Amino acid sequence: MSEQHLARPEFDLIATIRQRAPIRPPVLVGIGDDAAVISPSPNTLQVVTTDLLTEGVDFLWPDASARQIGRKAVLVNLSDIAAMGARPVAAWVATALPADRGLAFAHELHAGVLEACHEYAVVLAGGDTNTWSGPLVIAITMLGETMTNKPLLRSGACPGDWVLVTGACGGSLLGRHLEPRPRLREVRRMLELAELHAVIDVSDGLSADLQHILEESHVGAVLLAEAIPVHEDALRLADGVTPLDHALADGEDFELIATLAPEEGRRLLARWDLETPLTKIGEITAELGCRLQTVDGHLVDLPPRGWCHTWNTSSLQSRARNGNDSSGE
Amino acid sequence: MSEQHLARPEFDLIATIRQRAPIRPPVLVGIGDDAAVISPSPNTLQVVTTDLLTEGVDFLWPDASARQIGRKAVLVNLSDIAAMGARPVAAWVATALPADRGLAFAHELHAGVLEACHEYAVVLAGGDTNTWSGPLVIAITMLGETMTNKPLLRSGACPGDWVLVTGACGGSLLGRHLEPRPRLREVRRMLELAELHAVIDVSDGLSADLQHILEESHVGAVLLAEAIPVHEDALRLADGVTPLDHALADGEDFELIATLAPEEGRRLLARWDLETPLTKIGEITAELGCRLQTVDGHLVDLPPRGWCHTWNTSSLQSRARNGNDSSGE
Repeated sequence: MSEQHLARPEFDLIATIRQRAPIRPPVLVGIGDDAAVISPSPNTLQVVTTDLLTEGVDFLWPDASARQIGRKAVLVNLSDIAAMGARPVAAWVATALPADRGLAFAHELHAGVLEACHEYAVVLAGGDTNTWSGPLVIAITMLGETMTNKPLLRSGACPGDWVLVTGACGGSLLGRHLEPRPRLREVRRMLELAELHAVIDVSDGLSADLQHILEESHVGAVLLAEAIPVHEDALRLADGVTPLDHALADGEDFELIATLAPEEGRRLLARWDLETPLTKIGEITAELGCRLQTVDGHLVDLPPRGWCHTWNTSSLQSRARNGNDSSGE
Repeated sequence: MSEQHLARPEFDLIATIRQRAPIRPPVLVGIGDDAAVISPSPNTLQVVTTDLLTEGVDFLWPDASARQIGRKAVLVNLSDIAAMGARPVAAWVATALPADRGLAFAHELHAGVLEACHEYAVVLAGGDTNTWSGPLVIAITMLGETMTNKPLLRSGACPGDWVLVTGACGGSLLGRHLEPRPRLREVRRMLELAELHAVIDVSDGLSADLQHILEESHVGAVLLAEAIPVHEDALRLADGVTPLDHALADGEDFELIATLAPEEGRRLLARWDLETPLTKIGEITAELGCRLQTVDGHLVDLPPRGWCHTWNTSSLQSRARNGNDSSGE
């Protein structure tokens, strides 16, 4: 559960897999965005995403109830659907259930899944139920349909674009991480009012997830420190980390980061009529890298910070000598 | 890992979830078949299935290599795609990787996934990579397109239908369970030569999986003991269980059971030109239940036998007093 600022083995692994996984129609977008994009027939664009949650990492039991865990598993997938500019259609839930926790636990978990599916009009279309001696694992795959004739990818950001974020970030561990509010209504309204270039949801952390847009779009960004909407939860965390740093790195905010042309941004903010705040936090630059303009006007580098799955260092080192290749066990 | 002949809590749980998960277009078939069926646009039928594999239940490590595990995770999903009369399109892989097993293990697992995807022309379109302190879990969701204008469901069997099975069953634990051969070519050829009524793949066990067809179709069946194709692996297992019982109950054969009208069955078997054997093992009856005609001509009840996920009995009993409802933790 360590936060890593430099080594990002999870993303290196994904990059390797991606290189070896060529796509072809009807798959239009594969590994590397919030969801894959499929075109099963002309004028139909589907998105498919999957998120797997593990006990001890994504939730603690019984701190979180089985129902809350089931809900969270649905909601985090809905956040990915929102980040593609899509509406949800159907979900599949695969579980590894601890056998010693009993059937009622399984029923309660699924009650949470069903509850969240009903709230967002998602059909629970299938799954796979397993018991085992390990802790709880729940994996949900979700299918959606795009709301416009093109999906909102991470790769669409252009120099000069404004960077917007919904809601406020930081301190989700105080409880919001268990009850994400997928920004489906918000992205729908944004699409009604403006043309968006790139969108991602904040799961790993504001700076880490913005970094995905920057890398996929081959651009950089300057964020304004004083513009970052810091959630009150981040202010309540008196733990030695500044509220701004919480907002930039905590993750599990499940807000949306969007980029769009300045004139579109002006119009969108002028006409924005939902309760959820929508805030300009910076601009996309042709110069690569992400920088933060501090309150006193200085520009400082802002490395991507946020959650990254890691492997134990000893294993990493022993494997590094083999070049991390995949020959032999 | 116990085999249960009477209590089937896994299927009871699934039945409960299914009751609470209404479907609506574009979802045409939801919980309760080998895959869900989606119609995203007229004349397009997709199938989506998911299978989750856990260490200690579906494979043992390091008895099975990471590459073999990755392959198996893909192949079992392909078997479900075959059972729908579909061709595979794309796959999503979600993993909970043991952090202490190192990055090379993760690379090798994905090498197995990619290898099997390439062999069957499946696009690896996305996934979710996680590390944790638990054992390995791998969940794959697969999208397919039907080969005809209707999917092959479990619910289509009619009284009088012949019951066919591909290949041979039993003894898969000797190694075949790690390298399923999804019957995609076989189902395609069957569909070219005949109209099929109902199809399922044998994952839990021949009698258990046939039972799913019988329940969904509201019919029964009589199987001929001497006609059941017993795999040579079942003969090699000299463990006190008869080879026939192995064939009926072992599971993980990943063969297909198909039912079809007698005249279609006759034509199909007469024209069958693939190496994989295709065998008539019995007939569908209007009378409910499954019976086995023994070699000496007697009819005996054949209860569904095969793998069923269970919960620890103590938990089951304590929860049974609450009626297994899902109120409260």
